[in-house]
Amino acid sequence: MGRVTVRRPVRKITADGERRRPDSLAAEEPLELRVGGKALAVTMRTPGHDVELAHGFLLSEGVLGSREDVSTARYCDGVDDQGRNTYNVLDVTLAPGVAPPETGVERNFYTTSSCGVCGKAALDAVKLRSRFSPAESTFAVKTDVLVRLPDRLREQQKVFASTGGLHAAALFDPDGELLVVREDVGRHNAVDKVLGWALQSGRIPAPGHGLLVSGRTSFELVQKAAMAGIGLLAAVSAPSSLAVELAEENGMTLIGFLRGDSLNLYTGDHRVLT
Amino acid sequence: MGRVTVRRPVRKITADGERRRPDSLAAEEPLELRVGGKALAVTMRTPGHDVELAHGFLLSEGVLGSREDVSTARYCDGVDDQGRNTYNVLDVTLAPGVAPPETGVERNFYTTSSCGVCGKAALDAVKLRSRFSPAESTFAVKTDVLVRLPDRLREQQKVFASTGGLHAAALFDPDGELLVVREDVGRHNAVDKVLGWALQSGRIPAPGHGLLVSGRTSFELVQKAAMAGIGLLAAVSAPSSLAVELAEENGMTLIGFLRGDSLNLYTGDHRVLT
Repeated sequence: MGRVTVRRPVRKITADGERRRPDSLAAEEPLELRVGGKALAVTMRTPGHDVELAHGFLLSEGVLGSREDVSTARYCDGVDDQGRNTYNVLDVTLAPGVAPPETGVERNFYTTSSCGVCGKAALDAVKLRSRFSPAESTFAVKTDVLVRLPDRLREQQKVFASTGGLHAAALFDPDGELLVVREDVGRHNAVDKVLGWALQSGRIPAPGHGLLVSGRTSFELVQKAAMAGIGLLAAVSAPSSLAVELAEENGMTLIGFLRGDSLNLYTGDHRVLT
Repeated sequence: MGRVTVRRPVRKITADGERRRPDSLAAEEPLELRVGGKALAVTMRTPGHDVELAHGFLLSEGVLGSREDVSTARYCDGVDDQGRNTYNVLDVTLAPGVAPPETGVERNFYTTSSCGVCGKAALDAVKLRSRFSPAESTFAVKTDVLVRLPDRLREQQKVFASTGGLHAAALFDPDGELLVVREDVGRHNAVDKVLGWALQSGRIPAPGHGLLVSGRTSFELVQKAAMAGIGLLAAVSAPSSLAVELAEENGMTLIGFLRGDSLNLYTGDHRVLT
């Protein structure tokens, strides 16, 4: 628990020969998330900030809207063969009156659209479940602040620096200050940890902040930002088609290829001040 | 269906000014996979090679061992509001006598180990379900062949070249020839498409080939290689701790940071000829 890196010997082979040396790897362990004792999901994640991860995951799923929706979150069960807690099972007890999540395959989508399974249905499902309106976010940020964000993120990616193997996410303000940075082997987990931190600290909805991610942007990451009421998502790499469509549909700003001194602005131009 | 890229206008902002131009995005759409009419999973994928994807997914899950285990695979249901097939629901009918997959959260893991949810349990579960033994693979490849693989992969990543937004996977032989290359917004999907192609063409188990991936290596990707009886997995980026452990546990070779003229060899040294 809390082991975010693991040391392993590695043989490094180059054109000039080879050498054996210890290497740091990003830790990956399964986490089973339960709600009211019932298994909801298993995610492979980097241990640490698991309670935040659970809060962020349940926010993204539309189960939570504020920190008051959770009564307790605690590690349970899951002992290893020496009877020690593995810290890999987390049970969240919802506050009275909070509806538990649906389980099963259908959890993530549809029955909301005339198309059973398609991009449009996925977009509609987010709209239906969202408590907050990212379109109302008045957040705006200057281009020269945006282009400095990736370096700032990298400076704070402590585990990446030693392993080269982690995704990162952060919340930032209009001045480019990073409020919180989280790393994980799964990019969706890194975002869940950031949003869970925000939920636990009473900052959700977060229309006054932007979300920064170190990699590519998928439908799922835009969904998470939307569910948190965040109006701007900036990514170092490329977005998918459905990521752009979901951002547009929800009145959000989506930035990709935030590298060097440039960026691509896909939708929601009014939040970027040139 | 079959749209692997989508055109969108984008505002590209640089220090020298800005311009509006059309941009190609990697397409992302949901795919619901059913087995015998029952929903098993939904994955966000790049459309195309969906039947391969289904085969690879079910191979990874331990449901399929050969192409004869599938009777039919066909698009079903899922019509849009104009009654057109969305090609986003694929139903696989198993051959008589083939046990259908388990569903639910527990599907991916455990009840196999003294630890309910931990890395060890995840490793044990793979061993229990695997039909093939990657440890028996006599595949071996020279270092100078390995270091040329990333360029060869990139040359064949047609969609990446236009979007910058796709993961890729490939099967290769001891001479470094790529037998098949697949791209997807999800790296697990890219691998499933490659393995599904191999299964459909009667090449599984594939102890005489290596698997190449464009990004990082997680537990899940090593699991997929193991389930296909592949002895060597090479990745352009970093592995996670559990990826290395799973490879070691199954007698596989795991290579990371395959870049420039060097590579990191984590486990299974005997398959790399220096």
